[in-house]
Amino acid sequence: MIDNCLDVLRKKAPLIHNITNYVTVNDVANIILACGASPIMSDEPQDVAEITSICGGLNINIGTLNQRSIEAMFIAGHKAEELSHQLLLDPVGAGASSLRTDTALKLMKELHFNVIRGNVSEIKTLAKGSGTTKGVDADAADAVTDKNLEQMIAFTKNFAAETGSIIAITGAIDLVADQEHCYVIRNGRPEMGKITGTGCQLSGMMTAFLAANPENQLEAAAAAVCTMGLAGEIGMQHMQAGEGNATYRNRIIDAVYNMDSTILKQGAKYELR
Amino acid sequence: MIDNCLDVLRKKAPLIHNITNYVTVNDVANIILACGASPIMSDEPQDVAEITSICGGLNINIGTLNQRSIEAMFIAGHKAEELSHQLLLDPVGAGASSLRTDTALKLMKELHFNVIRGNVSEIKTLAKGSGTTKGVDADAADAVTDKNLEQMIAFTKNFAAETGSIIAITGAIDLVADQEHCYVIRNGRPEMGKITGTGCQLSGMMTAFLAANPENQLEAAAAAVCTMGLAGEIGMQHMQAGEGNATYRNRIIDAVYNMDSTILKQGAKYELR
Amino acid sequence: MIDNCLDVLRKKAPLIHNITNYVTVNDVANIILACGASPIMSDEPQDVAEITSICGGLNINIGTLNQRSIEAMFIAGHKAEELSHQLLLDPVGAGASSLRTDTALKLMKELHFNVIRGNVSEIKTLAKGSGTTKGVDADAADAVTDKNLEQMIAFTKNFAAETGSIIAITGAIDLVADQEHCYVIRNGRPEMGKITGTGCQLSGMMTAFLAANPENQLEAAAAAVCTMGLAGEIGMQHMQAGEGNATYRNRIIDAVYNMDSTILKQGAKYELR
Repeated sequence: MIDNCLDVLRKKAPLIHNITNYVTVNDVANIILACGASPIMSDEPQDVAEITSICGGLNINIGTLNQRSIEAMFIAGHKAEELSHQLLLDPVGAGASSLRTDTALKLMKELHFNVIRGNVSEIKTLAKGSGTTKGVDADAADAVTDKNLEQMIAFTKNFAAETGSIIAITGAIDLVADQEHCYVIRNGRPEMGKITGTGCQLSGMMTAFLAANPENQLEAAAAAVCTMGLAGEIGMQHMQAGEGNATYRNRIIDAVYNMDSTILKQGAKYELR
Repeated sequence: MIDNCLDVLRKKAPLIHNITNYVTVNDVANIILACGASPIMSDEPQDVAEITSICGGLNINIGTLNQRSIEAMFIAGHKAEELSHQLLLDPVGAGASSLRTDTALKLMKELHFNVIRGNVSEIKTLAKGSGTTKGVDADAADAVTDKNLEQMIAFTKNFAAETGSIIAITGAIDLVADQEHCYVIRNGRPEMGKITGTGCQLSGMMTAFLAANPENQLEAAAAAVCTMGLAGEIGMQHMQAGEGNATYRNRIIDAVYNMDSTILKQGAKYELR
Repeated sequence: MIDNCLDVLRKKAPLIHNITNYVTVNDVANIILACGASPIMSDEPQDVAEITSICGGLNINIGTLNQRSIEAMFIAGHKAEELSHQLLLDPVGAGASSLRTDTALKLMKELHFNVIRGNVSEIKTLAKGSGTTKGVDADAADAVTDKNLEQMIAFTKNFAAETGSIIAITGAIDLVADQEHCYVIRNGRPEMGKITGTGCQLSGMMTAFLAANPENQLEAAAAAVCTMGLAGEIGMQHMQAGEGNATYRNRIIDAVYNMDSTILKQGAKYELR
C-alpha cells in the first residue's frame, strides 16, 4: 500500500503550494520535484488565493513567519479548504515563542488540516496549548522511545481524534496516526538532525503524497515518512571521505529522486499499531 | 561572437542587482559568481535605488513577489533605466495569478527591458495579456517543437518588435530574438526541469552577460542561454551513481564556473534564423 | 587555546538566533549545525524577543535588510543585551547604500556588540561613518596586505578601543583584535570569494563560538576565523574534476562538520600581535 503511494504520486505529479520559511525553502522545492510533484511558493496575501487554487495541496510551515505571511496562511488555507485540497500544517518552533504557538493554534481552530506534522515537542505544545520547545529542535526529554512507545501511540491517536487530523510525529521513531491506527516507522538516520530542514522537506513532500493519494491519507503520510527516512539511509551509503552535513543534504534529496516503489517496499521499516 | 561574450564578462566582472524570489536566490548568487560577475540582492524600497546605482545590470524576477518587493522593483527599475543599465524581466508565474500577470505587464508598461526571459507559457501570457501557466512551469501544450518552430520564431520576433525588448523563451528548444533575428538554441538537458530555479539562475547570469556586453545584447542573451544549456550537458556527464536533482544543481553551477570560451564555442548548438 | 574553543562549542551546543539575509541563510544554518550548535531564524518584530531569549547568542546580518527586519534587529538586540547574550554584527554592504551604513551605525550606537565582523571596506565604512563598498565585496584598494599590515593592525585595535567591540576583518589576511591584541590569521583560500556567503557563514559560526566561550571572546572569534579558513583549505583538497564554486560551498561546510580540535590545532595559522 505504502509503496503504491509513490507510484501514484509520480503519475499524478500534483502542484503543491508552499507557504514556508526562507531558511529551507530551496530544499523543500527540490525535494518536491525529486518525488515527482511540482512546487510553487507564494506568501503575499493578494497572490495566495489564486495560486492555491491551481494546486492540489497546501503546505503551511510557520518557520520565519511574519505578519504578512500569517495573513497569507489564513487566506490560502480557507481557499484550499473551500476547494477540498489537502492541507498540511508544520508548526515549526511551536513552543519556542507565543507568536508561533498562537499562530499554529489559531490555524488549527479556523482550518481543518489533513495532517499536522512536527517534532514531538511541537506536537505536545499544540496538544497542551503551550510548551517549551528548544528552538526548532525537539527537547530530548520528549523523545519517542521504545520505553514510552505505548503511551506515545495512545497520545498520538488521542490528539488525532481530538483534531480530526492525521498526526505525524517525527524523530528517531516516527509515529503517523489517525484516531484508530498508528504507523510506527523506524527508517532514518540520526545524522539527519544535523541538516537544517529535513522536517520542512518532509512536510513539503508529504503534502505531495497526500495530494496524489487523497483517498488513502494515512498511508500517504506514512509513505512520505518512510521515503524520507529511507532516503536518509541510502544517502548515507553514498557518503564519501570528507563529506558532512551539507553534502548529506543533497544526497538525501538525490535518493528521493532515485527512489521507486521497489526500493521503498524493500526498505520501508514500519508496523501498524 | 557568442563565445567572446563570456571572455568579456569574465574580464569586466559587473555587479548585478537582483530583486528575486527567496526560493532560488542562493543559486542565482552562486551562478552569477560562477560566470565571473558579482551579485547583490536588495528588495527594500529605501535601499534599492542606491544599490542599483553602483551596479551594471538589474534582474527583476517576480517569483514570491510581495507588496514591498513590487514597490522596490519599480523604484529600482526607474533608477536603472535612468542610468542606462541593462534591465531584465523574469516573469515567474505570469499566467498563474493576476497579481503576477498584472505586475509583469505593469513593469513592461513603465519600464523598457533589454530582455524579457521566461518559459513559453509565461511569455505567451505577456503577449496576450492573460494566460494559464501551470504554476511556475510551462504548459506542455505551449512547448516550442520542431513542428511549430517557424510559427514560434515569428511569434518571438513579433513580440520583440512590439515590446522593443529581446525575447528569450527557454525550454527544450530555446528562442532568443529581437525583431529581426532569432537564435534557435538546442543546448540543455530535460533533467534541468527537475531542479528548482534553473530559469531564475539563467536570468541572473543573462543580466551579467548583458551588463558586460551592452553593445551586443542579442549575442549576449544567446550566449547566456548556450552557457546554461551546455553547463547542463557537462554537469550531467559528471553525475555519479546515486546522484539526483540536488547534486545536479551544483554540478551545473560548477560547470559554469569551469566554462571558458573554448568550451563554449565547441559546445554551443545554435542557428541564427 | 583556540582549538579548545571548538571542543567547548561542541559540548555546549548553544542555540543561536540569526536575523540574516535570505540569500545565504540556508548555508548559515547548516554551518551552525556543522560546528555543533543549533540555529534558529526569526525576523518578525513580534517574535524575536522571545526567540532570542531562549538562545545564547544573536547574529545580526544586515544583508537584504528591510523595514520589518530592521525593527526586529533593534528589538532582538536590546533583549539579547539585557540578557547578556553574545551579540555579533555583520554589516553586509555597509558603504554600498546609506540605509545599510546608517542601520549599521545606529545598531552600533544603541547596542554593544561583542564582535563586529565584516570585510575591510565595510569595517572602514563604519570607522569613518561613510564609505564606498563595491556591493557586498571589499574594494581591492582596501585589502589588508603584508605591506600595510602594521597600519591595519593599529587601525583594527583602535576601532576596537573606540567601539569596545572585538573587530574581525576578514580577507586574504584576517585580523581579529580587541584594543590590545590582534590575531593575524592566514588560513583560507582565494576561491572562497567565489562562493556567496562565506562571510555570512563565518558570522553565524562565530556567534556560536562566542556563545559557547563567553569568557574567552577574542580567542573564540579567532578560532571561528581559523576554523572557516582551514575548512576552506580542507574543502579544496577534496575537490574533484569538474567541480566548482557550488560544490566547494558544500565541501567547506562538510569540513567544518568533520573538524575537531586536533585538526584545528595542526592547521590554524596565526600569530598574536
